Amino acid sequence: MGGGLEDLADRLAITDLLYRYAAALDDRDWALLATCFTPDAVAIYGGRAGTNEGFPAIEATCRRSLEPLDASQHIVTNPQVTVEGDAARSRCYLQAQHVKRGTEGGDNFTVAGSYLDRLVRTPDGWRIAERRLEVTWVDGNPTVLGWA
Amino acid sequence: MGGGLEDLADRLAITDLLYRYAAALDDRDWALLATCFTPDAVAIYGGRAGTNEGFPAIEATCRRSLEPLDASQHIVTNPQVTVEGDAARSRCYLQAQHVKRGTEGGDNFTVAGSYLDRLVRTPDGWRIAERRLEVTWVDGNPTVLGWA
Amino acid sequence: MGGGLEDLADRLAITDLLYRYAAALDDRDWALLATCFTPDAVAIYGGRAGTNEGFPAIEATCRRSLEPLDASQHIVTNPQVTVEGDAARSRCYLQAQHVKRGTEGGDNFTVAGSYLDRLVRTPDGWRIAERRLEVTWVDGNPTVLGWA
Repeated sequence: MGGGLEDLADRLAITDLLYRYAAALDDRDWALLATCFTPDAVAIYGGRAGTNEGFPAIEATCRRSLEPLDASQHIVTNPQVTVEGDAARSRCYLQAQHVKRGTEGGDNFTVAGSYLDRLVRTPDGWRIAERRLEVTWVDGNPTVLGWA
Repeated sequence: MGGGLEDLADRLAITDLLYRYAAALDDRDWALLATCFTPDAVAIYGGRAGTNEGFPAIEATCRRSLEPLDASQHIVTNPQVTVEGDAARSRCYLQAQHVKRGTEGGDNFTVAGSYLDRLVRTPDGWRIAERRLEVTWVDGNPTVLGWA
Repeated sequence: MGGGLEDLADRLAITDLLYRYAAALDDRDWALLATCFTPDAVAIYGGRAGTNEGFPAIEATCRRSLEPLDASQHIVTNPQVTVEGDAARSRCYLQAQHVKRGTEGGDNFTVAGSYLDRLVRTPDGWRIAERRLEVTWVDGNPTVLGWA
């Protein structure tokens, strides 16, 4: 339980995973993204990114959203992680910047909210089994992401 | 002292507390907010949020600021925590987004700065005994928060 | 290796260092900044902040950029740290706000990207031996920083 070395190590490993997901998206490193999820994970992004069942669907949606951009930066903060045996829950805040230079109306679009995750311990380390995105605010030019 | 398991666990527990405060505000979860402070805590927010002595005053001020909004997100980063026995000090950065849709002049207002905290260990875990907010910059439309 | 107490303590000490750097810049505390680098460290900031060899050059560049401002806030997130013995690598995200009130065209300028660091363990703790800044997006009024 909370405070022992094992619990600290688990929670830090899960926080690392939250950041690895961000790095995978922002580097367009889809092999790295695969290390963040179980093969049958579900990502509920909402809006036109919808509900994605299984890693291939998750990867396809992330590619479709991010590959047209010049840059993105998924700032992940306020991680709150609870571990129980081989399962865990986490919530973190997201502030994602999307950049497409020369877009009429402005180059930047921010999407912000929370990721709500269910995680499992696997032989290869912690993985996301279910991720739900709750968007709470946006700022800038939605045309950058093709929202219009 | 720095680096032992107990020190790591204390510092992580305090970082968790900094994030729990943010979640309490953004979820308007006043029972959760009560778990962040000692009953006689002081919160020095400055400006019209003033100095608040005791948890009931702190809760009243937070409600008055946040309940009229559609959303808020208190992004908390750069936690710096020092523990000495049953007392601690921390400093973290804050970037708080406030959203009220349909506000003339823009929906968003950002308030950013630092929280400077004095904390104490209690039988129920670490609690904030004194919190001081230093605002260093703002952006967007202050009318969102009724600053005008 | 990953997960042991020593590894956790090292990684947390390096994360603390990343935040101490930000505090040193934002407080204009150049003595504190000196505790972040080895004496012969190299900081590759790019643009007009260039490549800076040795701490005196790093300090001079930081002073030149930041002392004219009314405020700055270097939000540091997503720390990813890997330790191998007495050496380490880290990457973190940066969102730096720069404020100069009364600037024509707007008071704020945001510079965002990643810090890519090589670190070494010294008798005084972990120090940055090489820091490279990769800027991925900016927002606001570049005149605040004298970029024009």
